[in-house]
Amino acid sequence: MTSEDAALGRAGALLTIDLDAVAENWRRLSAQGTPAECGAVLKADGYGLGAAQVGQALAAAGARSFFVAHLEEGIALRAVLTEPRIVVLNGLLPTHAAEYSAHRLVPALNDPGEIAAWAAHAAALGTTLPGFVHLDSGMNRLGLAPEDQDRLASDPSALSGITPITWMTHLACAEETGNPMNRAQLQRFRQAVARLPPAPVSIANSSGIFLGPDFLGDLTRPGAALYGINPTPDRPNPMMGVVRLQARILQTRRVDTPMTVGYGAAHRVEGPGRIATIAVGYADGVLRASGDRGAVRIAGFTAPITGRISMDLITVDVTHIPEPLAVPGALAEIIGPDLPPERLAASAGTIGYEILTSLGRRYARHYVGGAL
Amino acid sequence: MTSEDAALGRAGALLTIDLDAVAENWRRLSAQGTPAECGAVLKADGYGLGAAQVGQALAAAGARSFFVAHLEEGIALRAVLTEPRIVVLNGLLPTHAAEYSAHRLVPALNDPGEIAAWAAHAAALGTTLPGFVHLDSGMNRLGLAPEDQDRLASDPSALSGITPITWMTHLACAEETGNPMNRAQLQRFRQAVARLPPAPVSIANSSGIFLGPDFLGDLTRPGAALYGINPTPDRPNPMMGVVRLQARILQTRRVDTPMTVGYGAAHRVEGPGRIATIAVGYADGVLRASGDRGAVRIAGFTAPITGRISMDLITVDVTHIPEPLAVPGALAEIIGPDLPPERLAASAGTIGYEILTSLGRRYARHYVGGAL
Repeated sequence: MTSEDAALGRAGALLTIDLDAVAENWRRLSAQGTPAECGAVLKADGYGLGAAQVGQALAAAGARSFFVAHLEEGIALRAVLTEPRIVVLNGLLPTHAAEYSAHRLVPALNDPGEIAAWAAHAAALGTTLPGFVHLDSGMNRLGLAPEDQDRLASDPSALSGITPITWMTHLACAEETGNPMNRAQLQRFRQAVARLPPAPVSIANSSGIFLGPDFLGDLTRPGAALYGINPTPDRPNPMMGVVRLQARILQTRRVDTPMTVGYGAAHRVEGPGRIATIAVGYADGVLRASGDRGAVRIAGFTAPITGRISMDLITVDVTHIPEPLAVPGALAEIIGPDLPPERLAASAGTIGYEILTSLGRRYARHYVGGAL
Repeated sequence: MTSEDAALGRAGALLTIDLDAVAENWRRLSAQGTPAECGAVLKADGYGLGAAQVGQALAAAGARSFFVAHLEEGIALRAVLTEPRIVVLNGLLPTHAAEYSAHRLVPALNDPGEIAAWAAHAAALGTTLPGFVHLDSGMNRLGLAPEDQDRLASDPSALSGITPITWMTHLACAEETGNPMNRAQLQRFRQAVARLPPAPVSIANSSGIFLGPDFLGDLTRPGAALYGINPTPDRPNPMMGVVRLQARILQTRRVDTPMTVGYGAAHRVEGPGRIATIAVGYADGVLRASGDRGAVRIAGFTAPITGRISMDLITVDVTHIPEPLAVPGALAEIIGPDLPPERLAASAGTIGYEILTSLGRRYARHYVGGAL
């Protein structure tokens, strides 16, 4: 029995998450972003890889500022990380202010109403409370609109009781180095900040860290790159791979005469050849859009996905793989050193981020490295 | 505070699952499939809706046979359902035979090796064990190939100790009423069964139940239709809706001058108008492929998705919705009575099944009805 078999146990697939690689990626991003403090984005359960485990590994590596999307995510993370700053990006629903302060969570304040509610809550508690203030610079998704920024600049007393403040913005096109949108957003943000009370600024997501020193500000917010996604898509990936997904071959099938494979009888195999059925499907994050387009690796060979993706199964062509290597019980690699998440994403017409957050729950999860 | 607000609590989105509707759908499928016994497929955590909760509701409604994909899913379901038959469709990895018998799980035996291992396990225990034997009839995914069926017919002693047996097959194109593949598969299956020891047969998935009496056999295996997915896509949906997904509006934004929205600055809004940002994204099952194509409902109005889907957020056009109805804190319907899963699926170029299994974990989950 291999160590993979032991970790796999009775599950159909094994997801291995390398916490040392996550920590190393954080160190690389921290070095690249010097002198800014390097934060870490753990939303969506750490991009599907486990916010608690990743958060503990990064705190041990030295990270002191974490970002989540939802209040619930912040509360869950606070339960395992007592010390670090935890910022909730989706903002403050005014009725939940007390839960933010009780769990020492910092809201990213996205509009004047949220600023007013947070300031009022600080006053009610007779204290001051920290806050990020999100100044939209062109994403038009969350954050103070230009007219709100104008009003705040002319009457900063609305911020009374909110201290320390961090001004933040979010880039829409950071992974496109040459896109003029990046510098336009930076300029709008700088102009807004210049009219507001002095405070640290946070601009760059993963890709933003690679746009040059102007984009670093005081605190960076990498997410995807921590998990091994390439922040510089037009250049080699400076990050270490973090995720390996392997699934068992359940059955192999000899095809001697022309026949169709899978749902809709949509794929025709001319034969002679062999098809292997593997215990992973779209319920496990192999998006249905990868049908007939993606590929897996078996014993170092590439095996193209053949036919539609089922909920729990895929079928792959193993005709050219030596028969003893592609047998029931053997492992196929779905994501790994030779198959980065971006590869699977490309076959589904999406981005590596969505592959990670779609990974599902049916795996044996095996964490290696880290402080665990 | 509405009852939805109470159920939502501090979460960004609320997933309501109507267990009475699931039970009613099972009764309808049971009636449609008479005289066959009506089973229920609970794989992938009950298509994302909770195998334990759905299983208990269906057991209370009278279901006695359940189907899962993985051994782990079978063990988890056995922990909450003591009595019913639980069949594991992905088959038997021979080293796990003892876990199947310990939890009284019935493997769907997919090849001669699995049959041999199960028979040997029965002999070792000095007892008999029940087994489904999957005869492939043209799906070419799992199940005994034609040559294996021939061998079994000429020497049925391989089945010694496996009793009772159920012969099963799986249809590749059942949702296409007129597809000749359906009758071709039925004929192949009938011919194979005729040469094998007499035993009950199981053929029909959800759509198969609507293909006519020839396809009913002794035990049906509906999955998707239980959860409200239309088993007859070319006709009105005979099922009740089961799922409602609602998410909070976090912010609304006035657009007075032409501007771009979201990642990649890919969507241009000419203005004047209003954009709302909603607390649900591709990490929550709104597949990224729905960007600029899907729509949500707010207070009875349709609001088109504008720009790319983010991990945690979508932006929608609310220009034509009265301003007081589309404010921060208000709920947008993502899936519901007017937006069946198929609608969201169509905007992402996929099927309702994948929407359900992609729903993610960040919701407040609210079960209504059922035996709970």
